[in-house]
Amino acid sequence: MNCEVIAVGTELLLGQIVDTNSSWIGEQLALSGIDSHYQTKVGDNWTRIEEAVRLGLERSDAVIMCGGLGPTQDDITREVIASVVESDLVLDQAIADRISEMFRSRGREMPENNLRQAMVPEGAQTMEQQPGTAPGLVVPVQSPDGSPKVIYAVPGVPYEMKEMVLGTVLPDLQERSGITSVIESRVLRTWGQSESGLAEILGGRISELEASGNPTLAFLASGVEGIKVRITAKASSSEEVEGILQEEEGFLRELLGDLVFAVDHDNMESTVLTLLADRGLSLGVVETTTAGYMAHRLATARSGTEAFSGAVAARGPGILSYLLKGDPGVWQPDEAAMQLARVARGVLVSDVGIATTSIEDQSRATESHPFGTAWLAVSMEGFETVERVSLPGDLERIRQFSTISLLNLLRLHLQGSRG
Amino acid sequence: MNCEVIAVGTELLLGQIVDTNSSWIGEQLALSGIDSHYQTKVGDNWTRIEEAVRLGLERSDAVIMCGGLGPTQDDITREVIASVVESDLVLDQAIADRISEMFRSRGREMPENNLRQAMVPEGAQTMEQQPGTAPGLVVPVQSPDGSPKVIYAVPGVPYEMKEMVLGTVLPDLQERSGITSVIESRVLRTWGQSESGLAEILGGRISELEASGNPTLAFLASGVEGIKVRITAKASSSEEVEGILQEEEGFLRELLGDLVFAVDHDNMESTVLTLLADRGLSLGVVETTTAGYMAHRLATARSGTEAFSGAVAARGPGILSYLLKGDPGVWQPDEAAMQLARVARGVLVSDVGIATTSIEDQSRATESHPFGTAWLAVSMEGFETVERVSLPGDLERIRQFSTISLLNLLRLHLQGSRG
Repeated sequence: MNCEVIAVGTELLLGQIVDTNSSWIGEQLALSGIDSHYQTKVGDNWTRIEEAVRLGLERSDAVIMCGGLGPTQDDITREVIASVVESDLVLDQAIADRISEMFRSRGREMPENNLRQAMVPEGAQTMEQQPGTAPGLVVPVQSPDGSPKVIYAVPGVPYEMKEMVLGTVLPDLQERSGITSVIESRVLRTWGQSESGLAEILGGRISELEASGNPTLAFLASGVEGIKVRITAKASSSEEVEGILQEEEGFLRELLGDLVFAVDHDNMESTVLTLLADRGLSLGVVETTTAGYMAHRLATARSGTEAFSGAVAARGPGILSYLLKGDPGVWQPDEAAMQLARVARGVLVSDVGIATTSIEDQSRATESHPFGTAWLAVSMEGFETVERVSLPGDLERIRQFSTISLLNLLRLHLQGSRG
Repeated sequence: MNCEVIAVGTELLLGQIVDTNSSWIGEQLALSGIDSHYQTKVGDNWTRIEEAVRLGLERSDAVIMCGGLGPTQDDITREVIASVVESDLVLDQAIADRISEMFRSRGREMPENNLRQAMVPEGAQTMEQQPGTAPGLVVPVQSPDGSPKVIYAVPGVPYEMKEMVLGTVLPDLQERSGITSVIESRVLRTWGQSESGLAEILGGRISELEASGNPTLAFLASGVEGIKVRITAKASSSEEVEGILQEEEGFLRELLGDLVFAVDHDNMESTVLTLLADRGLSLGVVETTTAGYMAHRLATARSGTEAFSGAVAARGPGILSYLLKGDPGVWQPDEAAMQLARVARGVLVSDVGIATTSIEDQSRATESHPFGTAWLAVSMEGFETVERVSLPGDLERIRQFSTISLLNLLRLHLQGSRG
C-alpha cells in the first residue's frame, strides 16, 4: 500500500506559504507504516491538478489531496475529482443545512458560493468535521487495471486537515491495506541517544518481536524534536490493541529509562511545564544565545503554560551587567550560566530558574571552548546544577539544541533521575 | 519559459525536514518572471528520481533539482542526470584538486567517496561555489521534440543552494528565455497597505509602463513579511539596468512614501535595528502576547543586532506585577502597554523601549476590545506613543502581526514620518 500527497494552491508554488501540511502528512504516513514515494505541489489550475491526480493514481494506490476545498472560485479540488472519477457532483442536503445554519447562528448572510462546499461527487463519502468547515471527501476509484484505489480530499487549514487525516484517512488507509483488524500506534519520544544508540538498546527486543510481528517497532529521527520510537499493534478490538500498546510501552520504558520524555503529541516544553504545574512551581528563564527561542517555545506549549512566568532575553552588555551585577567579561561561562539561573528566579518571580550561555561566535571560540559549546544551568530550592554540552551545526541549530537540552536537564531532575 | 522544482531526499518525504528550499526557489522564479507549475518531492531512489526528471522535462522547459549532490552513497542526483541525458560521468580534475586541497588544509584525510563530487556528466557545466561544497550543475538536454531544455542541480544546503540559484540558475534561465539583454530585479518591501490598495496607488504608473514594457512591476503578498513590489528592468548593460532600477525606485518611493520599509533582502527588524544603530540608540522590549517571538526575530536579524539590548517576555502575574509595580488588573491595556514600554528602557538598560499588550484570550474579549485587539507602545527621549490595532487570524498570526506592526511604528518615527 502506498499513498502520495498532492498539495493544491498557487500560493504554495509562489513561496507565499511554506507547505508544512505535506511534511506533516508524510510523517503520519511513515508512522502508520504506509509508504509514500512522491509529494507534489500544484497551482489552482484545472488541467494541471487533473494531470497530477491521474499520475498519482497511476503510480500509487491512494492520493491525499490537500487544499482547494474552500468556497471561492479558485477552489476546484471537488470539481476536478468528480471529473477524474467521471461522477456528477450532487448536493448533500445535510451539509448544505449545516453550512446555512452556521451562517444563521452568526447572524450573517450566506454567500451563494458557500453551497459549493456541500457538493459531493456521487459515490463519495464525506468526512466528519468541525461545524462550519469544508467537508473532507473519501472517493473510491476503479483504476484501469481493475484494482481499487482511492482519493482523499482534505482542507488546507492545518488543524482541520490534521483532524481528518488522523480521524478518517489513516484508519481508512490501514483498512484498505487489507488488514481488517484494529491497528493503532503509540509514539515514545526520546532525547539523549543517537538512532544507532537506540537501535542497540532495543536490538534484543526488536529481535524478540520479529517472530510474532505484533507489535512492531520503528524509529524516526526528528532533529530538535528528538528520536521517535513508534509502537504499532494490531488485534481484533480496540481494547486488545490498547492492552498490547500498554504492555509494550512498559517493556520499552524499562529498557529506555529516562530517555523517554513524552508520548504522542506532547513535546519537551509541555512535559516540563506540566511537571512544574503539577508541583505548583513556576519557571523563569534567562536566555543569552537562544534569545527568545526558549520563551516562544514555552509560551506556545500545548499544556502547562500557566507555570511559565517569563523570560529575559539578554543581548546587550547593559542588561547582562545588570543581571550579573558588574562586568560580564569577568565571569567564566559556566559560572555565568549558574548565576543567571539564580537571577532568573528573582527577576522573573519564579520558583525555578534556568539559563544558558554559549560560544555563539567564532571569534570568541578557543581550543578549550570551541564554537557550539554551551552551558546549561538550573537553580531551584535544594538543587543547583550546571552542565557543559558540545552542540553541532550552525547558530540556529545551537539555539534549538541548547533549548531542548536545558529543558531536558530540568525534566530529568524533576522526574527524580538526577539531583 | 517555465521551470519546475524537484526536491530530492527521503527525509523530506518522511517529514523529518520541511522543504523550505522549494518554497524559496518558487518565490525567486516568480520574482524573475519565470512560470513554475509543479514542485515535486521524491526520495533517494534511482527509479523514482529518474521518472520525476523525465516527467519534468516533458512538461516544463527547465528542471531545478535540489539535493542529492553530497558524497554519500544515497546521493545519486549526479548519476541519475547522467543516465537521463545519456552521458558518461567524467572526473573534473580541477574540482577533484580543490576537494583534496580542502581536506589537506584542514589536516584531514579525504574519504575516497568525496571524489564522487568531482564527477560531472559530459557536456555539463559546473557552477561556481564556495570552496569545499558540492559543485552545482547546468546540464543541457535535447528533448525528443528537438527543443533545447535544461536540468540544473543544486545542493540541498540552503545557503549553498541560494548562492547558486541567484548567481547562476536565474540568470541562465533568463538568458534561455531568449532574452540576451541584462535583466535585473529589485524588490521594494511595503507594510501598511493591502494588495488592492497598492494596485490603486500604483495603477497610473503601471499603465504608463505598459507601453514600453520596461521596467515591469509585479506584486507578491507575503503575509507577515508584507507585500513585495518587484521592479524588473532590462537593457544591454548592467549599468543601464541599474540606472533604470534606480530611477523607477525613485518614482515608486514618491508614490508609496513611507509604506516602503526595506529593499531586497532586508526586512523589518534589520531596517529598524540599523536605523537605531546608526543613531547610536539601543532597543529594549517587553513582550506579553508575542512572548519571545519579537526577541527571536530581533536577535536573528541580518544587521543592526548590536542595537538590540534584549527583551522580557512577561507571562506570569508575578513578573507583570513587578514591571507594573502592583496589580496588572488595574491597568487599561493601552496604559499598560505605554508603561511597559517605559519600563523596558529601565529594565533592559536601553534608549528606546517598545511593548505590546493584546486580547489574546477569547475569555477576556469584550465588545469594545474583541479578540485580536493589540496595543503597540514606543517610549524614547522626547517621544511616546501608543496605538491600537485590530489584528486578524489566530493567536500565532496575532503574535506575528503585532510584532511587525510595532516595529513598523518605531520605524515610522525614526524615519521622521511621525512624532
